[in-house]
Amino acid sequence: MTIMASFLDSFVSKMPSLSTSDHASVVSLNLFVALLCACIVLGHLLEENRWMNESITALMIGLATGVVILLISNGKSSRLLVFSEDLFFIYLLPPIIFNAGFQVKKKQFFRNFVTIMLFGAIGTVISCTVITLGVTQFFKKLDIGTFDLGDYLAIGAIFAATDSVCTLQVLNQDETPLLYSLVFGEGVVNDATSVVIFNAIQSFDLTHLNHEAAFQLLGNFSYLFLLSTLLGVATGLISAYVIKKLYFGRHSTDREVALMMLMAYLSYMLAELFDLSGILTVFFCGIVMSHYTWHNVTESSRVTTKHTFATLSFLAETFIFLYVGMDALDIDKWRSVSDSPGTSVAVSSILIGLLMLGRAAFVFPLSFLSNLVKKNESEKINFKMQIVIWWSGLMRGAVSMALAYNKFTRAGHTDVRGNAIMITSTITVCLFSTVVFGMLTKPLIRYLLPHQKATTSFLSDDNNNTPKSLQIPLIDQDSFIEFTPGNHNVPRPDSIRGFLTRPTRTVHYYWRRFDDSFMRPVFGGRGFVPFVPGSPTERDPPDLSRA
Amino acid sequence: MTIMASFLDSFVSKMPSLSTSDHASVVSLNLFVALLCACIVLGHLLEENRWMNESITALMIGLATGVVILLISNGKSSRLLVFSEDLFFIYLLPPIIFNAGFQVKKKQFFRNFVTIMLFGAIGTVISCTVITLGVTQFFKKLDIGTFDLGDYLAIGAIFAATDSVCTLQVLNQDETPLLYSLVFGEGVVNDATSVVIFNAIQSFDLTHLNHEAAFQLLGNFSYLFLLSTLLGVATGLISAYVIKKLYFGRHSTDREVALMMLMAYLSYMLAELFDLSGILTVFFCGIVMSHYTWHNVTESSRVTTKHTFATLSFLAETFIFLYVGMDALDIDKWRSVSDSPGTSVAVSSILIGLLMLGRAAFVFPLSFLSNLVKKNESEKINFKMQIVIWWSGLMRGAVSMALAYNKFTRAGHTDVRGNAIMITSTITVCLFSTVVFGMLTKPLIRYLLPHQKATTSFLSDDNNNTPKSLQIPLIDQDSFIEFTPGNHNVPRPDSIRGFLTRPTRTVHYYWRRFDDSFMRPVFGGRGFVPFVPGSPTERDPPDLSRA
Repeated sequence: MTIMASFLDSFVSKMPSLSTSDHASVVSLNLFVALLCACIVLGHLLEENRWMNESITALMIGLATGVVILLISNGKSSRLLVFSEDLFFIYLLPPIIFNAGFQVKKKQFFRNFVTIMLFGAIGTVISCTVITLGVTQFFKKLDIGTFDLGDYLAIGAIFAATDSVCTLQVLNQDETPLLYSLVFGEGVVNDATSVVIFNAIQSFDLTHLNHEAAFQLLGNFSYLFLLSTLLGVATGLISAYVIKKLYFGRHSTDREVALMMLMAYLSYMLAELFDLSGILTVFFCGIVMSHYTWHNVTESSRVTTKHTFATLSFLAETFIFLYVGMDALDIDKWRSVSDSPGTSVAVSSILIGLLMLGRAAFVFPLSFLSNLVKKNESEKINFKMQIVIWWSGLMRGAVSMALAYNKFTRAGHTDVRGNAIMITSTITVCLFSTVVFGMLTKPLIRYLLPHQKATTSFLSDDNNNTPKSLQIPLIDQDSFIEFTPGNHNVPRPDSIRGFLTRPTRTVHYYWRRFDDSFMRPVFGGRGFVPFVPGSPTERDPPDLSRA
Repeated sequence: MTIMASFLDSFVSKMPSLSTSDHASVVSLNLFVALLCACIVLGHLLEENRWMNESITALMIGLATGVVILLISNGKSSRLLVFSEDLFFIYLLPPIIFNAGFQVKKKQFFRNFVTIMLFGAIGTVISCTVITLGVTQFFKKLDIGTFDLGDYLAIGAIFAATDSVCTLQVLNQDETPLLYSLVFGEGVVNDATSVVIFNAIQSFDLTHLNHEAAFQLLGNFSYLFLLSTLLGVATGLISAYVIKKLYFGRHSTDREVALMMLMAYLSYMLAELFDLSGILTVFFCGIVMSHYTWHNVTESSRVTTKHTFATLSFLAETFIFLYVGMDALDIDKWRSVSDSPGTSVAVSSILIGLLMLGRAAFVFPLSFLSNLVKKNESEKINFKMQIVIWWSGLMRGAVSMALAYNKFTRAGHTDVRGNAIMITSTITVCLFSTVVFGMLTKPLIRYLLPHQKATTSFLSDDNNNTPKSLQIPLIDQDSFIEFTPGNHNVPRPDSIRGFLTRPTRTVHYYWRRFDDSFMRPVFGGRGFVPFVPGSPTERDPPDLSRA
């Protein structure tokens, strides 16, 4: 330890005049990049491990680094960077959510759209209500400062935001498509809903709470949802149209990739500018881009965008967990609660209990409701799946942290005792749920769904790891081909007739017809990209990639 | 204009309480992303134009935006972001230089290594000396504050830093390989040399200038050059070894891509940490990564990394030009020189004259020297090529700007008149040289080298734009195959014998032998990646991609 301390000291004492930038930030950037490398290598080595996953590895490495820095700095600080909501909401969250939309299996997602919205939107509201009511009851008995209704509602929203990454890393999209799409879809809609609720509470005058105000809140909520979705769809369609019209591929692959990245980011930032929900916008922008834009670019742009978006999302996720781990040891936060450790433990335990209850309060009733309207047995959510869905939402992560920081570390509020307790409790809940619940996830899902291969990673793409993919370059498109084989992507009458004979929903059928006749001729998409003679993309049917 | 003003006003006056981040920064981020999109689309549309190129387009859009903002804000400000050296040196420069190393044709680069170092290192020193002597003479006659020797030397270093992007966009790597590699190589080495000279002057005590101190300066300089190169090579080799040993591709393409990005960035940041030249380090890291690491990853990772690095570099370059254009109109800087516009014009003219003279002072003599030792006529630099090399270094860009800001806007110095004049003069020189010299580049090179196709872009990759590339996925590797056909990538005796019969330099031969017997078995590289059965990468000879 002393060697490392003197090693670090020698850096700091070195003449910083040669360097153009702040020396301390260079040191922390170096450490962060090196730690990210370590997370990737360790995550790879622990891939087959029964208990660990990438999130827990990053969290552990963050904690360990925090301890080392704490010892080197003689207990002064464990942080290299201050946790910044801006960093999180402006730079780290957009790539994660965009990639979720870009890689989602659209057919499954839209087939279960109603159930996903039920869980994601209504469920989050129920969960938020249960937690709010719970903390209102319990916190009065504990001695932790004064909170008003707005604070309790904010706590509800903070702990209603789930982090389903752990579960998604274990579930297999191909083996349990329904379960995967429910857990995945709920995760995204839940993120958006909890942020929207949180913002709505912050800006709303809660002193005059009546029927009218409640309806107004509901109206605001629906308005935000609808407008955010529309903005995302519009941005995605513009990107598809521009790339199709200008046909960048003729001159440069890099321009296409750059434009797709920029437009995706622009959709998020525009939503933030108009005070909409950037998460929803960028998610739908990702869906539209993968349905239209992605098919208008060259083959190499397709491979590049697919993997670049996945890599950026992976890096952002790892960074967040690493950071949360490192930030957890910040000594200042713990100092003000150190005189009453019992209270902090009590608050954390109450919160963990409430969030488990809050989830149970909507997963099982809403599943029952959803099963009532489903006729097909394969579309029903059985009890084991309900338990997995309930479990998948028990982990708390970066969104909760960011919202808690936003609420309880505002200027002038930091030294209030209640705020300090809420911050440390949020950290405790995040760490505990991610590590303990996270470690139990793999064994639990293996036990409940025994046919499941537990080692398949959500982030990896099986197709690219098998040597097959080198023989058939088109296999990369496989995950984007969501409709059954056949060339119905060309709107010929016989293909539509063939479509009619298959059991598919009416809405879906009309959407396909609309898509084929109006949308795809304008915005491109599979089968509608500019014809390039000799290109196998145009001639080979999608079936080839299934060979 | 009034509509836009009220439009912007309505944004600013909107309740920022819903947004978690600073509203003004959200507005400027939106505008920047939108402008970057505009640059890409306009750059594409102006591709065939005789005078314009991507840099000038970005600069013009930046200037136009600056004017609009100036009018909206009633002349208060034209800037959305403050030009930050940190932003430039920590985030924008590394991807540009890394990509330069990653995409360079290594055979040509190392074949002309001595000439490149002659132009890049010795030439930059000569150019810096000429400019320093010139300004020392001329500035005494003008009334622009007091400068000491250190200031004059810094001005020399600032204006010795060239920006050869414009010329590289016009030159064709395949038609004039010698010229391209000289201009390209000189550009990178020049960037590194001028930054190293600038830093050496800043940290050096110039009051006791004698022989000993001069030798010490030279020693420092060589030490920095050597150590920076070694660090880059070491980081590159570590990345190759780790990826080869762990074979990430088995599980995830994204981990490989993420690790390559992080290691590349780490090399730059480590160099900055040790006060070495990050530019040199990351350049050599790029070369090593493209020679070893790139061959150890999966096919999709290869396509992804190649295009991602190129895209990031392209975006960073566009951002810089956009930004320099926007920053040029900052009203505060011009206010203090507005009472003596004549002086500012005189200083700028003197500087432009001196930088033309400074380049002429080394391009022609050093070309003569280089031609003396070359026996082969095709390796000699003819007069037309010398003019192109001279011309390619007349443009001044972001490196000059960043160094000038570092020198003349240090805390407490900003209101000194001499400093204000130097900042505005640097902006004037950068704008004038980029726009005027930049626009003349295409016509000039077309006139001097008439067989040249002037529309080929440096950033685009011809191979990916032709439909052929869709049939042969391996064609992507083409630019990385720098040795002539034949399977000498497998170290069999007959391939080495075949190598001996070809006229190649002894050093090059021994390097190949060393590379084949020691380096590639350990670090991977073409022909040494883990064998994947059924993968065409392993079986097909590189000749295929030339079909």
